[in-house]
Amino acid sequence: MTHCVGGGEIAGEDGSVADLGEWGVIAALRARMPAGALTSVGIGDDAAVVGAPSGSVVAAVDLLIEGRHFRRDWSAAYDVGVKAAARSLADIAAMGAVNTALLIALAAPGALPARWATDLASGLASEATRAGAGIVGGDTARADLVTLSVTALGDLGGRRPVLRSGARPGDVIAVAGTLGHSAAGLALLTAGIADPAELVAAHLRPAPPYDAGPEAALLGATAMIDVSDGLIADLGHVADASGVRINLNGSSLAPGTLLRAAAARLSGRQDSLAASALEWVLTGGEDHSLVAAFPASAVLPPRWRVIGEVATGAGVTVDGAPHDGPGGWQHFRG
Amino acid sequence: MTHCVGGGEIAGEDGSVADLGEWGVIAALRARMPAGALTSVGIGDDAAVVGAPSGSVVAAVDLLIEGRHFRRDWSAAYDVGVKAAARSLADIAAMGAVNTALLIALAAPGALPARWATDLASGLASEATRAGAGIVGGDTARADLVTLSVTALGDLGGRRPVLRSGARPGDVIAVAGTLGHSAAGLALLTAGIADPAELVAAHLRPAPPYDAGPEAALLGATAMIDVSDGLIADLGHVADASGVRINLNGSSLAPGTLLRAAAARLSGRQDSLAASALEWVLTGGEDHSLVAAFPASAVLPPRWRVIGEVATGAGVTVDGAPHDGPGGWQHFRG
Repeated sequence: MTHCVGGGEIAGEDGSVADLGEWGVIAALRARMPAGALTSVGIGDDAAVVGAPSGSVVAAVDLLIEGRHFRRDWSAAYDVGVKAAARSLADIAAMGAVNTALLIALAAPGALPARWATDLASGLASEATRAGAGIVGGDTARADLVTLSVTALGDLGGRRPVLRSGARPGDVIAVAGTLGHSAAGLALLTAGIADPAELVAAHLRPAPPYDAGPEAALLGATAMIDVSDGLIADLGHVADASGVRINLNGSSLAPGTLLRAAAARLSGRQDSLAASALEWVLTGGEDHSLVAAFPASAVLPPRWRVIGEVATGAGVTVDGAPHDGPGGWQHFRG
Repeated sequence: MTHCVGGGEIAGEDGSVADLGEWGVIAALRARMPAGALTSVGIGDDAAVVGAPSGSVVAAVDLLIEGRHFRRDWSAAYDVGVKAAARSLADIAAMGAVNTALLIALAAPGALPARWATDLASGLASEATRAGAGIVGGDTARADLVTLSVTALGDLGGRRPVLRSGARPGDVIAVAGTLGHSAAGLALLTAGIADPAELVAAHLRPAPPYDAGPEAALLGATAMIDVSDGLIADLGHVADASGVRINLNGSSLAPGTLLRAAAARLSGRQDSLAASALEWVLTGGEDHSLVAAFPASAVLPPRWRVIGEVATGAGVTVDGAPHDGPGGWQHFRG
């Protein structure tokens, strides 16, 4: 953050961000940002100062780029803000940490409506607040496409971080949050279908269960990750890092009513639908649910659904067999 | 950071980043990154964990966008890495903090040569190492233009942060580092002139005096900022935040031999040159030197050059009069 602006009235939100000017944009965004309980220096100086009471800070950054991660004709600015925040906030939760702060870097076209930028700020602020984080700094620049980088900071409260590498044979695998809802919503949007609205909303505004992250740490989770690239792909990272095989129980992953309804809307053919809905569950990304390994002895609250177990070997299997499907995102591939 | 890759040989650096794939790019970058003395979890999990020994973390983010902040035909990839890192590292120093870690978000075209990405990583790594920081996390995506967001984290070592708002009438203003060198280098590059090479280098690879930041805090600095937008513009932020006037002594800012030589190369007209070189000193950005207010009683080491004083009033003056010149960058203006 290299720019500082005073408070006061924001003029010209009906114009473009070019009309407002860089500092006007920052002032407009700043007026919407939650301060955060642990923030001692927020937006407006060279850098922010945020409490790190346990003597270390958990930090992650994620990019969100127009045309790549969202479309302005599908996503309202508020939704883009929610999604951009959720991606990074979920990374902190997946370490077992509590979110404390976000820093936002925003590049945007000069012709972008100022209202779009302020709605974006409202979405960022809303999701940050839901996670308990302040928005403490940022930077702005001009670019042809809306480009957001969101850095999230968190605190472990004295707990050890839950890494990807701690899963052990005999552990159970459990998930908190939805699987495949975002992918189904994306498929519906692609087909121009607006319902089930809950699935479209799940794609536009993911709602990770942030507090399940620290909860998992307290329950003794041995490994954890957020489902950003797809259940099999992300558990593949855990299996690789832990040197184990993860076996999923197909019956526990049977698509629910909503996903089956979406599949029905998309194909009309009953037999291929169930398979397609299961594919969303197994390989759909961007739900940002939390999936973790726990000792078999752990007593899990209801929101943690057991979906598999850790075994010796390598990779991820479903009912003991490899799954043939797309493995996840590869942003740079042609 | 939502992606994890194993170590090992990086194949295909003669190809493009699309040839490498996202994880190949991350692996290639990761192999070049310094771990950092305070890093307990680095690149490769959902988030990094970095020590914050004084119980708080200082954090800032800056964007660097191709065509806006650098040109690939002027700047080698290594230089872009140095510059991107320096911008954020300087923000942490300007709070009086020691740099601990960087997180890098990189969006790039699929056709970008993989060698360019790895040279970029070397530049980032080199400057992070010079500042004492590890590179602990990141994200990658595809975009038409190379876009970097660099988040820097730092630790205050128990000192209070040096804000923009603490300057008091009677304080002296002093600067550590160069003024106007980057602007002169940019002017030379624009004119297709390669020397004085030191000035061109100053534009391509700024070298902020990071350790002067914590030093200033120990010397009792009452306010500090890094010169990113230009001396007058940035001191204007300090004056506004502190509710004071800052008066610069023109004689102490007289351009040196290098700047006068550059001005001579650019115009050939002796009379207008001195004025142009002074303009670089007063309004040139991107040197990322540190400028601070100190109590008049402070005994400053030689690298802190006194260039003015704090008075009652508002704004920034030079020898008591307002300066008529460009005030700084406005990224979104048309």
